[in-house]
Amino acid sequence: MVAVTAQYPFSIFPHFHGNSRLLSPETEFCTVNFPSRVEYSRLILHPKGHVAEVHSLPHVGDFTGENEATPILDAIESPMSLKNLSTKELKQLANEVRSELSFIMAKAQKPSRFSLTAVELSVAIHHVFNAPMDKILWDVAEQTYAHKLLTGRRQIMQTLGEQNGHPVAAPDFVSEFDPFGSGHGCNSISAGLGMAVARDFKGKRDRVVAVINNETTMAGQVYEAMSNAGYLDSNMIVILNDSQHSLHPKLEEASKTPINALSSTLSKLQSSKLFRRFRELAKVLTKKIGKGMYEWAAKVDEYARGMIGPPGSTLFEELGLYYIGPVDGHNIEDLVCVLNEVASLDSMGPVLVHVITKEELEVGDNQMNAVANKIMEGASSSNTKPCGTRTYSDCFVEALISEAGRHKDIVAVHAGMGMEPSLHLLKNVFAEKFFDVGMAEQHAVTFAAGLARGGLKPFCIIPSAFLQRAYDQVIHDVDRQKVPVRFIITSAGLVGSDGPIHCGAFDIAFMSCLPNMIVMAPSDEVELSHMVATAALIDDRPVCFRYPRGALSVMEKSFGGGIPIEVGRGRILTEGKDIALLGYGSMVQNCLRAQLLLSKFGVEVTVADARFCKPLDIKLLRQLCKNHSFLVTVEEGSIGGFASHVAQFLSLDGQLDAGIKWRPITLPDNYIEQASPKEQLAVAGLTGNHIAATALSLLGRTREALLLMC
Amino acid sequence: MVAVTAQYPFSIFPHFHGNSRLLSPETEFCTVNFPSRVEYSRLILHPKGHVAEVHSLPHVGDFTGENEATPILDAIESPMSLKNLSTKELKQLANEVRSELSFIMAKAQKPSRFSLTAVELSVAIHHVFNAPMDKILWDVAEQTYAHKLLTGRRQIMQTLGEQNGHPVAAPDFVSEFDPFGSGHGCNSISAGLGMAVARDFKGKRDRVVAVINNETTMAGQVYEAMSNAGYLDSNMIVILNDSQHSLHPKLEEASKTPINALSSTLSKLQSSKLFRRFRELAKVLTKKIGKGMYEWAAKVDEYARGMIGPPGSTLFEELGLYYIGPVDGHNIEDLVCVLNEVASLDSMGPVLVHVITKEELEVGDNQMNAVANKIMEGASSSNTKPCGTRTYSDCFVEALISEAGRHKDIVAVHAGMGMEPSLHLLKNVFAEKFFDVGMAEQHAVTFAAGLARGGLKPFCIIPSAFLQRAYDQVIHDVDRQKVPVRFIITSAGLVGSDGPIHCGAFDIAFMSCLPNMIVMAPSDEVELSHMVATAALIDDRPVCFRYPRGALSVMEKSFGGGIPIEVGRGRILTEGKDIALLGYGSMVQNCLRAQLLLSKFGVEVTVADARFCKPLDIKLLRQLCKNHSFLVTVEEGSIGGFASHVAQFLSLDGQLDAGIKWRPITLPDNYIEQASPKEQLAVAGLTGNHIAATALSLLGRTREALLLMC
Repeated sequence: MVAVTAQYPFSIFPHFHGNSRLLSPETEFCTVNFPSRVEYSRLILHPKGHVAEVHSLPHVGDFTGENEATPILDAIESPMSLKNLSTKELKQLANEVRSELSFIMAKAQKPSRFSLTAVELSVAIHHVFNAPMDKILWDVAEQTYAHKLLTGRRQIMQTLGEQNGHPVAAPDFVSEFDPFGSGHGCNSISAGLGMAVARDFKGKRDRVVAVINNETTMAGQVYEAMSNAGYLDSNMIVILNDSQHSLHPKLEEASKTPINALSSTLSKLQSSKLFRRFRELAKVLTKKIGKGMYEWAAKVDEYARGMIGPPGSTLFEELGLYYIGPVDGHNIEDLVCVLNEVASLDSMGPVLVHVITKEELEVGDNQMNAVANKIMEGASSSNTKPCGTRTYSDCFVEALISEAGRHKDIVAVHAGMGMEPSLHLLKNVFAEKFFDVGMAEQHAVTFAAGLARGGLKPFCIIPSAFLQRAYDQVIHDVDRQKVPVRFIITSAGLVGSDGPIHCGAFDIAFMSCLPNMIVMAPSDEVELSHMVATAALIDDRPVCFRYPRGALSVMEKSFGGGIPIEVGRGRILTEGKDIALLGYGSMVQNCLRAQLLLSKFGVEVTVADARFCKPLDIKLLRQLCKNHSFLVTVEEGSIGGFASHVAQFLSLDGQLDAGIKWRPITLPDNYIEQASPKEQLAVAGLTGNHIAATALSLLGRTREALLLMC
Repeated sequence: MVAVTAQYPFSIFPHFHGNSRLLSPETEFCTVNFPSRVEYSRLILHPKGHVAEVHSLPHVGDFTGENEATPILDAIESPMSLKNLSTKELKQLANEVRSELSFIMAKAQKPSRFSLTAVELSVAIHHVFNAPMDKILWDVAEQTYAHKLLTGRRQIMQTLGEQNGHPVAAPDFVSEFDPFGSGHGCNSISAGLGMAVARDFKGKRDRVVAVINNETTMAGQVYEAMSNAGYLDSNMIVILNDSQHSLHPKLEEASKTPINALSSTLSKLQSSKLFRRFRELAKVLTKKIGKGMYEWAAKVDEYARGMIGPPGSTLFEELGLYYIGPVDGHNIEDLVCVLNEVASLDSMGPVLVHVITKEELEVGDNQMNAVANKIMEGASSSNTKPCGTRTYSDCFVEALISEAGRHKDIVAVHAGMGMEPSLHLLKNVFAEKFFDVGMAEQHAVTFAAGLARGGLKPFCIIPSAFLQRAYDQVIHDVDRQKVPVRFIITSAGLVGSDGPIHCGAFDIAFMSCLPNMIVMAPSDEVELSHMVATAALIDDRPVCFRYPRGALSVMEKSFGGGIPIEVGRGRILTEGKDIALLGYGSMVQNCLRAQLLLSKFGVEVTVADARFCKPLDIKLLRQLCKNHSFLVTVEEGSIGGFASHVAQFLSLDGQLDAGIKWRPITLPDNYIEQASPKEQLAVAGLTGNHIAATALSLLGRTREALLLMC
């Protein structure tokens, strides 16, 4: 039963924005021509050609829709159940999965386009391959949702967005069907190759299938992995789920290849056993009779494909993968045919199957359309986020725009997965002064260093977890050469629903051990704008500051530009004689909360804002030691960061011997699973209550401390 | 005056070894056919087809050779002096540079083949471009030597190998002619692109030339950079100095393209203004009249090149760089012609000039041959290193081979620049169980994770400074998923002549903050083999240990296999009541030296070997605190590492309050320039004397402490 539903009188515009996986407020469009075997109905479209922002849908509190019947999906207990389905049944299964997934995603208020691109692909993969014996690896969590529905996780999937009342972005429900975690993307070929090699060593015969997507083809690791796969020549299947068909973030300049009957035929031809066996033979012959034969075989090969292969195919061939494609990723029949052929090949080395998909919805139910319309109404009548909630990121963008008015040399470089909504504003304002390089963090950092050496003032914006990917470049291309790059470390600390994958726990430790780096963190909005102004002025060395992903807790209104602060100078916010709390970054707010709580217990607290982890304000530290018996440092980062720098100074300065009792509060030594930001802070022991309780314990008032923790 | 010298009755074998920049003890050969305009004489060859190991030449103490006359080079004060030279004079200049460089390198006992590949290229670049106004960037220090000779650093170059009696590997004498440091390779396109963009912003007209080499084309950053360069379309020239002509480490499987007259002509044709202008026009038209025209232009373009372009060209084109080549990198006339055309192009976006060079010597002087022969005699009569000097690396290889006898699942993965000599032995023994992926550290780590998930026991060997390049993969593909990869961190700490570029200062800090990682360091050879045995047994989480590059200071003889040690258990080596020295890794030896010194002052010292940074041996720590008033931690790593973990524990355990006086000795907070290992340790304050002096100071005996430092 193919889903043929009401046609809308609008053009079809799959919507891309740069390399971001979030929809942008801009309107950049492209058309993709698909063979019209299946008519897609559209969930997300707009009569005026504008696409709504789906990444931050408003809360649909009164959503009561029900999903349509899913008879085939209901019967799927494990991928084995897919084996005996006919093509027609597989098609219906795909429609049911699509419908179910749309329903789940709508209910969870999450964009569904990424997960929906892989529906037919997941069905075809599980029909052809034998998971969990065959290993199926994915490189982005969102694309695994259909796979999860088909591999016994349907019930868990249905709780998406319901867990503790907050959305769950990347449910990494690990089972035997997930041989490797998807993490930061772009790792599936490397991990799959490792498994393929291990399989060969063990003399096993299972197949390894690594699915990648067009976004991650920007990451250098993918090239490293493909090149090594081509060299090691182990049997493995890489499937490129290409919903954008461009290696470049700017879509309009990318070439667009229509999938037509011819290319579909070609895909089948190329994957046919006969053709592959011929090539295999040629390969063997080459080794025996030398180069000439190989060239001849290559020519035949070239001829068989014609010059019709899409741009990009040669890239994969150069890297050593046998290219097959493009295949229409929504056509189950073609997918099954191609994958069947590929699965039956032996000793052929790595193969790349190029699958083209559309990032738009297809549901077979009017009821789903009603849900969609409801969401759309909400979306068009609201902003990208709840009114009045300002984030650190908003403030940073404002401050940087203000600063750019003063310094015409300021430019911005962004790298990492996705882009925070407020950065889109920066991108619009900065226009050609904004460089979004996507998942190419290594390049981003050295590129920023080049910009700085060329006399510009680059602000290099990278989420903490992704800056890890460019650590060596930060060290050798920036810090060692004292190049004045300003690193803006976003999503620092806990990140709520994104869990440990996007958690920025380590940046204080790995940045502050670098000799030339100035490491700071703002405690609130005003400080953030001051630090932007400070960073803009520092031209003789690199500087970095971090801010969390969350909403501001203190300030409400925006204000004028920042005022540069003295490097290495902290500040005291409140004074008290009993204990000193020295906060770093956003944790200063929690120290202030603790101070309020403690005042109720009659404890007088000094709260200081360190501002700098490097250079430390040693005058401030000495003052705190002199006037207090207890010093508690608080940071939302791992061991090895701010507390370690304070401890080293206190020790070498003799302050620890002189009697100050120092206690560090850091993130605990484990990965904190996804939960609401508040819950995560509680798990981490970083709330105002925790800090206050630590203080009371230090003062010997353990019973009161326990009261605080109830 | 072309250097035509005596012909040797041997075959010509340029020698490659995998992706390593060191010559290997194996004999893998390939032939490269060059146009025979210039007859090369050969410095390094061997009648039996074996190539001597040049990377560790014996000391030629009585070397008194003198270099031949260099009239043209003598007249070069700056690159401006090259402008008016005729082609004939340029050729002679290249010969003089080649001769001078061979002389310098022979004197410094360093392999010259890498630096000599870029001689004609450097001459041609400085003849065509206007440095320092035009920016010339290199991505590997060795290839800059000819460039340095031509840019006013001839005198400094002549001191190569003489500085303090130890060889200087990467003289990064920074001047206005070096717009960016070369660091870990593969950064020159990224940095150059940044400079090109900055130039466009500033409305300047200078040119940016980034030279890369075939080894660094394995690194993912190069692809990220090329892809972004193609997208941003700024004018810049990338020159691929290709002395291997393969993207894969296994040379024999790479295709070899002869440079012949036709390709030389084609290179010229492709770089001719007319052709480029036509293409430029087509580009502009495309934007106006749409896609059809573009395709037509592309077809013409394709035709003009024919199908003759070498494999690899399309790879660069796919990434968005206009490919020109291959050009004979030793033919000044061709180089100047091509570079002149390329330099005169405007608004054409990034261009890649593919230059093929030979990694063998060409000198025009019998005297030089005498020098070479002298070196050869020495080389053939000695081992790769002075007899009797065993390194940590040797011991590791022995231990791992022994361990592999017990565990058949042990495999080894190596990544990074070059490979230590002893690892070649491992490679030979392990054969297909050894994976050298070259400069693809990101891939190496995730690949190892895949191997582990596939049931093997991977030992992932990466120098500390290069592990920085795969930090995110260590976190997300290994540690977060608790995959049992064993990281062997080589070249940990100071690395002597390689200076700050290869210094492994940060690994303790950035590895020990990871929640699931077991972090350890052996204090000597026996401990090293124990840790290999321990790591082989740990199958439920990742583990790492580090060892320094240097020679062993204690043990002399090899011995049997290691015995697994208890995780998180340190040991006490000597006991004394006055002060406790807690060493980590190789610094335990220096603690023992300090103990000996201190015993002469009547100070009784406990020396403990921590073994583990994570998990800490808290029982040992409590014992040390209980029995001593002073505790000094010593490590060859930056702040944030072992000392920080000890401090955090001591604080939370209340030990610091209870009176123990703790002092951390770590690497200082700056980059330590190249010097002998001994000198570097002294600069870092990590010698036995320094430790002893710290102890005496703590005990209030400052005058005696000062005596120790004299």
